[in-house]
Amino acid sequence: MRKVALVGAGVSKFGVRKATYRDLIWEAGKACFDSVPGVRPKDLDGLVVGSVMPERTAFQSHISSLAAEALGIRPSTLSARTEHMCASGTVGIRYAYAFIAAGLADLVMVLGVEKLNQPQGEEAILNMGTGVDREWEAAFGLTAPPCFALAAQRHMAEYGTTEQHFGLVGVKNHTHASKNPNAHFQKGATLDQVLGSRMIASPLRLFMCSPITDGAAAVIVASEERARALTDRPVWIRGTGQALDGFQLTSLHEDYAHWPALKRAGEAAYRMAGLEPKDVDVAEVHDCFAIAEIIAYEELGFCKKGEGGAFVEAGRSDYGGDVVVNPRGGLMGCGHPLGATGVAQAAEVWAQLRGEAGARQVPDAAVGVTHNNSGMGEHVVMIYGRE
Amino acid sequence: MRKVALVGAGVSKFGVRKATYRDLIWEAGKACFDSVPGVRPKDLDGLVVGSVMPERTAFQSHISSLAAEALGIRPSTLSARTEHMCASGTVGIRYAYAFIAAGLADLVMVLGVEKLNQPQGEEAILNMGTGVDREWEAAFGLTAPPCFALAAQRHMAEYGTTEQHFGLVGVKNHTHASKNPNAHFQKGATLDQVLGSRMIASPLRLFMCSPITDGAAAVIVASEERARALTDRPVWIRGTGQALDGFQLTSLHEDYAHWPALKRAGEAAYRMAGLEPKDVDVAEVHDCFAIAEIIAYEELGFCKKGEGGAFVEAGRSDYGGDVVVNPRGGLMGCGHPLGATGVAQAAEVWAQLRGEAGARQVPDAAVGVTHNNSGMGEHVVMIYGRE
Repeated sequence: MRKVALVGAGVSKFGVRKATYRDLIWEAGKACFDSVPGVRPKDLDGLVVGSVMPERTAFQSHISSLAAEALGIRPSTLSARTEHMCASGTVGIRYAYAFIAAGLADLVMVLGVEKLNQPQGEEAILNMGTGVDREWEAAFGLTAPPCFALAAQRHMAEYGTTEQHFGLVGVKNHTHASKNPNAHFQKGATLDQVLGSRMIASPLRLFMCSPITDGAAAVIVASEERARALTDRPVWIRGTGQALDGFQLTSLHEDYAHWPALKRAGEAAYRMAGLEPKDVDVAEVHDCFAIAEIIAYEELGFCKKGEGGAFVEAGRSDYGGDVVVNPRGGLMGCGHPLGATGVAQAAEVWAQLRGEAGARQVPDAAVGVTHNNSGMGEHVVMIYGRE
Repeated sequence: MRKVALVGAGVSKFGVRKATYRDLIWEAGKACFDSVPGVRPKDLDGLVVGSVMPERTAFQSHISSLAAEALGIRPSTLSARTEHMCASGTVGIRYAYAFIAAGLADLVMVLGVEKLNQPQGEEAILNMGTGVDREWEAAFGLTAPPCFALAAQRHMAEYGTTEQHFGLVGVKNHTHASKNPNAHFQKGATLDQVLGSRMIASPLRLFMCSPITDGAAAVIVASEERARALTDRPVWIRGTGQALDGFQLTSLHEDYAHWPALKRAGEAAYRMAGLEPKDVDVAEVHDCFAIAEIIAYEELGFCKKGEGGAFVEAGRSDYGGDVVVNPRGGLMGCGHPLGATGVAQAAEVWAQLRGEAGARQVPDAAVGVTHNNSGMGEHVVMIYGRE
């Protein structure tokens, strides 16, 4: 199997954007090409686009062809869209990775994009319901916030995790986002603000939840030979894992405070990389809700099971701690344009491992992890390493 | 790169189905598992689902997780949906192929599914418009039928192709479909019926077009080791190619009677397989409209450019001819449930190369090709071979 690296990355401004779906593609695509002067659109042999619901938000399918044309790319070996709800972007990176690892392609752009905010706010909220089981869950109101609230309640009951712990995740990620010019929210947040924000699904308050965001991100993935020719600082894909516990909430066999699929996906990625949790310097984890980040600390092995609340409280997931988690601001501070999220996570790790993350730079970051989930039962983990 | 084979396949009944999206998944999934007694759902390490617009037709994203749960599959390494308009299914097979070829997975189901017929017929028609550029083409009525009609007009002007040639493609494929119990149409058709059917977009009449169909299909893709353990008649993936000329009709640089992306995709697949057009015994080509099949004969090298009309007229694409094209009835006779089509093509080649195609069997078929396109400018070709 051939070695594969990221050689370029770029993101659009995230937020409530007065931009079309195509505008967002242009913005991230251009930023990505600008990051690798040696690559022109016509040099790519493939394009993969991660996007969840353009059929609903732009009345448009056939997304990779639209994006290829918008960016002047003429794929000669690979063109596809991937959809896996909130993990669509990372699933796209894995498509390109497998193609290059197998020797079927050499230089592929992976772009993630979502235009969620519609003129009618209710429409955006309604559309988010397509991610859970329509017939058995969404129709009865069991959308993402109440699902993750159940996990939070269980974690509190089982391990003594507190509302303040959840609040501290919000404070950390909103503070990180204040140093990210592309983030949806840039004002930071105090613990009082987070704990005083309105309740969404108990115990999760507004500032413990990711917002409905428009945005796009892109990375360029290359074979070893191409990577070495294009840059002296490639960011290697060292490991990857994906696992599923279940789709419907009732299929998750253990209690909701345990996410065994995340544990298995992480273990598979660590094994492939020959690395351990203690080797990780920077992690982009899927903090769609604060409880998700706390459980991610545990299942990814950064701390013991049940100690996620204490982990954030002690500052161990912040600068100066064991591992800097969500330096770009996470989904909570940076925003969560579904298909773009996994690609934006990879773009952040790419910048961090090259020492180009500016005010957000994690000192001497050498190993980075991304964790992207689609619901509580399905998880994708990538491990990246510099030379 | 590891060798990869199909080891199982199954399809649902195609047609205007009183079935949900999930019902169709169950029907094709069960048929596929029934075809390989040695494989239980829990033995699979991955699932890829090709589907275009469940967001519109079932208000549902996150499709591979829904399908995994419906079928009892617990993916341990790969789960994703692929969308590439009408080529979504073949693009899904390529995802699984790359994962297995790279050594990242061993046994993966690829399922294609689409529930297009809605209670309101107008809604189904409207939804099909998501496949072309919404802002610059669909909004002005330039949907699929007029695009392909332009290609047909050009082919007639340039090469003397006639309405009768298009009609003969309709007759052949409707006749083939009459031997396929899963086909949408099973009554066959005479040339008079085809040429007397109502005009859709001149010169293409109703029986020269594929219908709006519900259906699903599934195949199981395996590494060489697993394939040899599971069956004594694996169907090997010998070659694959994909290429893009453009998305918008105005981007196709040559005249519409030439599809250079199909030529390039085919040449890449032949090169990889070490085979030539004359080696092909059976081909499933993307006859969304009769002109598409005629151009496919030419660009895939079964005849010279411009001779596609004469090729069908001489019976060279039928039983007893050079290559049997669309034995299951093609998109025209069997139906075209977008995401399912590419997988159903693979399922037909699987049955043909194993000698299990019953009344449709192409005698001693050893090499099969599938061609799946998404618009006139984007094409995917697979080449399969028996031991």
